[in-house]
Amino acid sequence: MAHINVPEGVPGIRSLVMFRPETGKHLYELAQVLLREDSPLCPADRELIAAYVSHRNHCMFCRNSHAAAARCLYHEAASVVDAVFLDMQEAPISEKLKALLNIAGKVQISGKAVTAEDIEAARQLGAGDREIHDTVLIAAAFCMFNRYVDGLASFTPTNADDYAEMGRRMVEKGYVLPGER
Amino acid sequence: MAHINVPEGVPGIRSLVMFRPETGKHLYELAQVLLREDSPLCPADRELIAAYVSHRNHCMFCRNSHAAAARCLYHEAASVVDAVFLDMQEAPISEKLKALLNIAGKVQISGKAVTAEDIEAARQLGAGDREIHDTVLIAAAFCMFNRYVDGLASFTPTNADDYAEMGRRMVEKGYVLPGER
Repeated sequence: MAHINVPEGVPGIRSLVMFRPETGKHLYELAQVLLREDSPLCPADRELIAAYVSHRNHCMFCRNSHAAAARCLYHEAASVVDAVFLDMQEAPISEKLKALLNIAGKVQISGKAVTAEDIEAARQLGAGDREIHDTVLIAAAFCMFNRYVDGLASFTPTNADDYAEMGRRMVEKGYVLPGER
Repeated sequence: MAHINVPEGVPGIRSLVMFRPETGKHLYELAQVLLREDSPLCPADRELIAAYVSHRNHCMFCRNSHAAAARCLYHEAASVVDAVFLDMQEAPISEKLKALLNIAGKVQISGKAVTAEDIEAARQLGAGDREIHDTVLIAAAFCMFNRYVDGLASFTPTNADDYAEMGRRMVEKGYVLPGER
């Protein structure tokens, strides 16, 4: 049961934004800009960064829902998501994406853990300022979302089908407030 | 020097929102709702929670600027801010605020670190759902802001007077985008 009185049976962050839509509005708008709108990183890679950080924070709700969204967006390459969870450095993804996931993993520990060498390694593989910026902010934002969802013990479904459905909706509709779905 | 090409000499998050105003807009709006708008927690206590989490994350820019804002808002009780940094449990603040800062400190570690006992202790001292919610989300949000600011190595002023001035502006104007100041 959640730590506060949120609508029963509504999973994760959706129940929290229903409790407090004034903050929920800005959280959803931030997610929409970060994960869907203009960026040199494709939405699949951005969802993967979100899922990877959530995986490292052991936030099962965010991990599983954003992993499902990433699988939808990668189509036939959907299996890269689980390969990254298993061993990011050995996953069949580009070296550039590995360098960005390395930065995201450092952000998950602490902003100060990101070194000039981490940034330089990503640049050498073709990452520009915007890709580095968006990677850091997506990783930082999921350190917030993960803590919000787990810090209030919101409902975390355990059925894989529920997440597959959630992932499809996140890809089709984007991040819109529950009332607007 | 920052890891990406942001306006020189502009401190902390302001330089980052100038680099990417599309996300900056939502970050500032979130801060404004969380720290200034309707809440059972007064703005001084909310700024203290923000500063306390930033202190624990060793994010000097956010720690010092939000500490300065909290000192402004506490007026003659400004010294409680440094007392909390020194030893939160011994600081001359209410037991209820200590219970909320304890929850914020748990969120700083991980959402999962918040226990039913932490929540119950706050409730016994008079905290309701909204106070608990706002505490968790402020703490979670500063785990994002701190990582954004330090993960991109944005400029951190070292002069105490600069922060005092920043704190006054944050109290007077609230959280508005640099162009709108």
